[in-house]
Amino acid sequence: MAVTSRDVARLAGVSQPTVSRALRGDVRISAATQAKVAQAARALGYVPSELGRSLRTRTTRQIAMVADLANQIYPALVPALHDALGDAGFRLVVLAERLERPELSSVLPRLLDRSSDGVVLTTALLHSTLPAELDRHGVPFVLLNRTSDVVDADSVTVDNAGGAAQVGELLAGLGHRRIAAVFGPPTTSTGRDREQGFRNALARSGIALDPALVHHGEFAHGTGEAAARAILATRPLPTALFCANDNIAIGALAELYRAGVAVPGVMSVVGFDDLEVASWPWVDLTTVASPLATMARDAVRLLLDRVSDVDARREPRHVMHPANPVLRSSHAAPAS
Amino acid sequence: MAVTSRDVARLAGVSQPTVSRALRGDVRISAATQAKVAQAARALGYVPSELGRSLRTRTTRQIAMVADLANQIYPALVPALHDALGDAGFRLVVLAERLERPELSSVLPRLLDRSSDGVVLTTALLHSTLPAELDRHGVPFVLLNRTSDVVDADSVTVDNAGGAAQVGELLAGLGHRRIAAVFGPPTTSTGRDREQGFRNALARSGIALDPALVHHGEFAHGTGEAAARAILATRPLPTALFCANDNIAIGALAELYRAGVAVPGVMSVVGFDDLEVASWPWVDLTTVASPLATMARDAVRLLLDRVSDVDARREPRHVMHPANPVLRSSHAAPAS
Repeated sequence: MAVTSRDVARLAGVSQPTVSRALRGDVRISAATQAKVAQAARALGYVPSELGRSLRTRTTRQIAMVADLANQIYPALVPALHDALGDAGFRLVVLAERLERPELSSVLPRLLDRSSDGVVLTTALLHSTLPAELDRHGVPFVLLNRTSDVVDADSVTVDNAGGAAQVGELLAGLGHRRIAAVFGPPTTSTGRDREQGFRNALARSGIALDPALVHHGEFAHGTGEAAARAILATRPLPTALFCANDNIAIGALAELYRAGVAVPGVMSVVGFDDLEVASWPWVDLTTVASPLATMARDAVRLLLDRVSDVDARREPRHVMHPANPVLRSSHAAPAS
Repeated sequence: MAVTSRDVARLAGVSQPTVSRALRGDVRISAATQAKVAQAARALGYVPSELGRSLRTRTTRQIAMVADLANQIYPALVPALHDALGDAGFRLVVLAERLERPELSSVLPRLLDRSSDGVVLTTALLHSTLPAELDRHGVPFVLLNRTSDVVDADSVTVDNAGGAAQVGELLAGLGHRRIAAVFGPPTTSTGRDREQGFRNALARSGIALDPALVHHGEFAHGTGEAAARAILATRPLPTALFCANDNIAIGALAELYRAGVAVPGVMSVVGFDDLEVASWPWVDLTTVASPLATMARDAVRLLLDRVSDVDARREPRHVMHPANPVLRSSHAAPAS
């Protein structure tokens, strides 16, 4: 006869619901009890059926994350989301969006098939219909590091406009007047808001960006490399370069390094996000910190509130974290 | 009355199985048909139930990957696995092992609960019982970038011993005699095999490593930083340093940079894996290429062969890719 969770409960000396909770790693069960239950389950050769449980409860204890794994921000976000979900007894399913492989990127059916209880969207474009589709089908979701122009939904962001404005004020205050910028995609809230904040701050100092020194592109190394090449072909050279995220800044720094352009002696370079690489001694990039781990925890909190009460008509909540500049050695006053 | 896949099939003018395949992104269905089916499903408000499908077929079309996401190797492995699985109509579930959060790392129950059809193990220790447990419970799995001393199972690796031996021959051939090494954990096949290959190659040139210059640790930046600090305190300084992976090498390079030690002028540094950062101009690390994308595709192939025929008694298969040195500017002949 098949071993059931009741047999495990009897051997471990706990209740049957405690067995279920312990075996799915619920943090409300003490480590000692979890160990006791695991030992009993092992002794009896008991294997819980997730499919059976899902059917009974109509929940999966899974949360899907839609991510563009090629972006260097995800090695920071994924472990943070994983841990926050794990603490709440949920597991993380990563659905990768691949710009290079669009045929694998149709994530919508996989978000509507009830294989997850909720969704963390981290790549949504401003005009994406994905959030609206999830909304329409009653799938709980949260926007992490992004907002949508289409639906008003739970979101967790850093103050992108405010952070970029602080960089603008920093550079203007140091005396920079000829300033280049590599912004992200205007189709993303992070791209749009960082550009707007930076431009507004410069405008308050009477500085307008020369269109010849303004570039846009994906949040990727390649964008920074290509833009830096183009900027290095202009005369006079700008004395400062703002990059809309650290990935772009690293690419630009690499290109400036190859061209023998001293940073910050000839050109100051500033990024955004404060990824781990920004602190490497060769890079030592002045940037703006995005508190990604905290943001991930907040996103899980907002999402699980909705998951636990899908039918509640709850007003969308927006958490915006302050953006703090991290001053390192890649910025200085202009040389002349 | 609930909308069924039959209704969608009728509206889209295709068969019912085609609807199911199209909605789960099966690549055998053309993009045009997928679009037609998606449109029909949208028009009718049809939502396929993954739970229902799982129950009927007893499969989940999910593959779980056990990964230590803090390791910089995973940003390369995860997208490759995702794409290879996506091409075959499977989705990827990432179960993170977190050395810092061991209470969230008990992945075994989550691998045995039938929420996935198979498992890619990328973090297994040589003596881990996890592969044996999966074996015992009939859960198909493949070891990627690792092998096990406990069970003989499908595995995909790079020739770790051979690659490290080539580094040893390179350094010995250049005339290095006093050589330091930062090896990985001896509890991992990658750590053990790279150490063995490197030591054997040096021994063939009559060189024995001075134990004072040998360190072991996790495949992480911090390991390289700490080891470099210790090595810089020894006299005479070694003229070359082999690091068992690029993460360790980057940490060591950063520490040497802070200490003002010229690379390769004073000390040559060589890594292993050829991660993207190894090619950055400040780093420009001589290393050994692990063909991670190819390895991921091979692992998916071996695993899905087992998944598609769980009951077959198939001999374990081992795919080992040759390891190719990538010569950049961080190595040279010793100065004296």
